[in-house]
Amino acid sequence: MNIETLGIVLFDGFETLDVMGPVEVFGRLPDCKVKFISPEGNKKTSSQGVAIETEKVTNPQYKYLLIPGGQGTRPLAIDKEYIYWLKQQVEYTSYCMTVCTGSALLAATNLLNDLSATSNKLAFEWVTSINNNVNWQPKARWVKDDKFYTSSGVSAGIDMSLQVVSDFYGLQQASTIIKSMEYVWNDDASHDPFAVNLA
Amino acid sequence: MNIETLGIVLFDGFETLDVMGPVEVFGRLPDCKVKFISPEGNKKTSSQGVAIETEKVTNPQYKYLLIPGGQGTRPLAIDKEYIYWLKQQVEYTSYCMTVCTGSALLAATNLLNDLSATSNKLAFEWVTSINNNVNWQPKARWVKDDKFYTSSGVSAGIDMSLQVVSDFYGLQQASTIIKSMEYVWNDDASHDPFAVNLA
Repeated sequence: MNIETLGIVLFDGFETLDVMGPVEVFGRLPDCKVKFISPEGNKKTSSQGVAIETEKVTNPQYKYLLIPGGQGTRPLAIDKEYIYWLKQQVEYTSYCMTVCTGSALLAATNLLNDLSATSNKLAFEWVTSINNNVNWQPKARWVKDDKFYTSSGVSAGIDMSLQVVSDFYGLQQASTIIKSMEYVWNDDASHDPFAVNLA
Repeated sequence: MNIETLGIVLFDGFETLDVMGPVEVFGRLPDCKVKFISPEGNKKTSSQGVAIETEKVTNPQYKYLLIPGGQGTRPLAIDKEYIYWLKQQVEYTSYCMTVCTGSALLAATNLLNDLSATSNKLAFEWVTSINNNVNWQPKARWVKDDKFYTSSGVSAGIDMSLQVVSDFYGLQQASTIIKSMEYVWNDDASHDPFAVNLA
């Protein structure tokens, strides 16, 4: 199972590392291209000021999708038109990943209903308030359920991405990427050092 | 000592996370703006396909500078015109950081001569060959000497950036950023899990 193209949903106020951690991991695979997408097809700027051009996508076309978090998720999670667009994109996927508060957007589509998922622990109360039909996990670095991988905050997206690489391409490929990134992988999804932040 | 603006040198073939890890850390400071710069002022694309607009800078204007690594450093380290431009930028700084093979570019300016520095361990032989008047450290997550902070490969740039935040703003500020990033900081510069990669 190869990820030839990974679509990454961008919006103003995305969190830089939510996007760029996974880009670093998947971009190191031999044949994986990363595409940035939005309903508008314009430039989107992260909370830290990084501006990225996006491709305008109406009809879904990406089988692998990643939804980052960030302050920009707050208005979008209650924007019905946006969530309708996102739902169409996610329904089309074979696999869909979220980082941080990206799971709030995914939860708003109702496609996570009755499934287990996680999110940023400092924003956990807000995220879980978006949809209480999700089995929200307060202690998890990432969660896989059905076709969804949802991760905890920001840096957890790197750990989750390495797990996806390991699941799809094998542990050896993940190890090669780890070494070249000089990254210390937390490879245990149940080890969540930030779970204690939950009130 | 506040970093009001951090200039980040971009070139084609920069490594995505070398740049975006530090952007995430410094971008979370209350009053720090990040600017992407180059001698040409055009768009620069990372090895993973991330395209970023840069500001054309001729006369140096940034007191704080970060130089990332990546495949793009290979031709630039022997490009005399580029290294002359870079040397002018670095001479102007109060502090200059490098990530990964960014230290090869810095070493090529001769401004690291007789100082201690480190770099990516998988690329160590090439980096050290650029200038053997540097006290290259084969086992270090990052090194501070004089006004320079040089880090090991890719992810090490995040650890180094957190140290810079701690040095400039205090440990409490670094801790706040760590929690919001859900990042497990390797705060010990001498702990280098990738030193063993050195032949």
